[in-house]
Amino acid sequence: MNKYLITGFSGFVSQHFLDFLEKNQKKCEVLGLDINKPKFDISRYSNIRCSFAELNLLNSEEVKNVLTSFKPDYILHLASYSSVAFSWQQPVTAFVNNLNIFLNLVDQVRLLKLNCRILSVGSSEEYGAIHKDKLPLTEDMEVDPLSPYAVARVSQEQLSKIYCTGYNLDIVMTRSFNHIGPGQLEKFAIPSFVKKLLDIKKTGNKFIAVGNIDIVRDFVDVRDVVRAYFLLLKNGQKGQIYNICSGKGYTLKEILVKLMWQLNLSIALQTDPQLVRPSDNDIIVGSNEKIKKAIGWQPTITIDDSLSDIINYWAAK
Amino acid sequence: MNKYLITGFSGFVSQHFLDFLEKNQKKCEVLGLDINKPKFDISRYSNIRCSFAELNLLNSEEVKNVLTSFKPDYILHLASYSSVAFSWQQPVTAFVNNLNIFLNLVDQVRLLKLNCRILSVGSSEEYGAIHKDKLPLTEDMEVDPLSPYAVARVSQEQLSKIYCTGYNLDIVMTRSFNHIGPGQLEKFAIPSFVKKLLDIKKTGNKFIAVGNIDIVRDFVDVRDVVRAYFLLLKNGQKGQIYNICSGKGYTLKEILVKLMWQLNLSIALQTDPQLVRPSDNDIIVGSNEKIKKAIGWQPTITIDDSLSDIINYWAAK
Repeated sequence: MNKYLITGFSGFVSQHFLDFLEKNQKKCEVLGLDINKPKFDISRYSNIRCSFAELNLLNSEEVKNVLTSFKPDYILHLASYSSVAFSWQQPVTAFVNNLNIFLNLVDQVRLLKLNCRILSVGSSEEYGAIHKDKLPLTEDMEVDPLSPYAVARVSQEQLSKIYCTGYNLDIVMTRSFNHIGPGQLEKFAIPSFVKKLLDIKKTGNKFIAVGNIDIVRDFVDVRDVVRAYFLLLKNGQKGQIYNICSGKGYTLKEILVKLMWQLNLSIALQTDPQLVRPSDNDIIVGSNEKIKKAIGWQPTITIDDSLSDIINYWAAK
Repeated sequence: MNKYLITGFSGFVSQHFLDFLEKNQKKCEVLGLDINKPKFDISRYSNIRCSFAELNLLNSEEVKNVLTSFKPDYILHLASYSSVAFSWQQPVTAFVNNLNIFLNLVDQVRLLKLNCRILSVGSSEEYGAIHKDKLPLTEDMEVDPLSPYAVARVSQEQLSKIYCTGYNLDIVMTRSFNHIGPGQLEKFAIPSFVKKLLDIKKTGNKFIAVGNIDIVRDFVDVRDVVRAYFLLLKNGQKGQIYNICSGKGYTLKEILVKLMWQLNLSIALQTDPQLVRPSDNDIIVGSNEKIKKAIGWQPTITIDDSLSDIINYWAAK
């Protein structure tokens, strides 16, 4: 029976990964780690023997104990302070809770000589500002991180490579693009839009406050993302980096128009300087050719279906 | 009167920087920070009003208090666990004591809105393995860190850029190549060679244990390095990176031959696998064109003079 250790267990992505395992795996065992207790019922699965430990990944001793007793076959490292905006507000906290937690984890795997595969989740933010003539982004391009969050992700990737080559750990890396879907926290752009628009439907307000909505992002549904994570854990190549993206770019404005269309709303957009970041990438669109060729993954859920599911999720809350 | 804050105050480079200030500056004030007390007498200077505070840069509160009360014009950030070999042995400790100490420091400068210039010292190790056809190394080349130490230095540089562009801090960056000179700790290659050879002169041993001595490095005398640091603090351009190097490469074997020649010794070299690192760069030779053009710096001390001074230093100990 395969054993999965999932960090960042109480978050948005983890729940979708568990749903994927429940539907597609035979019996397996999962141990979830998080500093926060999960808000979902971990006994609801029939194919997964699921347990949880409340733990701060900065505490090496506790990480060591958990690894020693659970002995995972796979580690899905989802724990992250993944908001770019937050990383500008609190760069030290953001950096420590991205980079140092990862380093602590892989170093304990090294010290314990555990035989397990680790998925190191990175970000499209690592690429930085690339001239639009060079798009879509491919894994062999030079990275140029433009936020404290992006620097932490680049360091995580560089350390992953070094742990593979220097210490022979089995790590596969991703550069995951903006994922969206039901359950994502409202501090991220799209759920915040949906929540504001649903409020407007009730209150009848005539405008919505937004940041820079001309930026282009490559959105991929979280349910497609977790399938990629599973396939990479099984069939990805050690030491390799894989983009996880749709290959299509939309401005945030286009997303807002799609949401308003689905909600049958027509309102004005008002820029709030508080929501604009010190610096940002204009356009992020990735190529998913490498992962397609390597493990046959490609996205299956359209942007319109994702947005519809997100609206339904927030409407039901 | 200019005020300098020097981190890593008790180390090898700091003492040479103080000697430089003493000889070349009018009156100035220096506050040294280090986790270890300095082994030299800080009252020996006549041009420098010098004080010292024992402090761990990981303690943000103490860093804040020191910055608030001293209000430096310049920060020379020398604090570092700068041994590549150590970073392979204890990657977490090495990373934290390179990257996190730097991040804590610059973030306090940001929070306090201090008006000061910071010199962020990086390393030639950031470049990684570059094909020898592309040498010498120039600052615009893509970096490819190959050790935990090198990753920490790359992150430090990336964060420096972000603190310049995103928060408007005034940071100048270096990529300092292997510096050598009197006072360097014997855990580094050249002082360890000198010490072993001096022992051999006494004991009459017929061999010396070495690691991989075919690697080529660009050695620059620490007294030239500290002059570059001073000039960059005064005249470097904010947000820019400068190589500090001699522009010439020597294998460690060539250095050993030079040392043996100066010491009138002829002995066999024996490889000790314990001294060979998990992975290493074959050849590191830099270009100093950029710093030459920008601030007129170039090295003045020859490799033979450096080695002679190092021999005299260890012979007198």
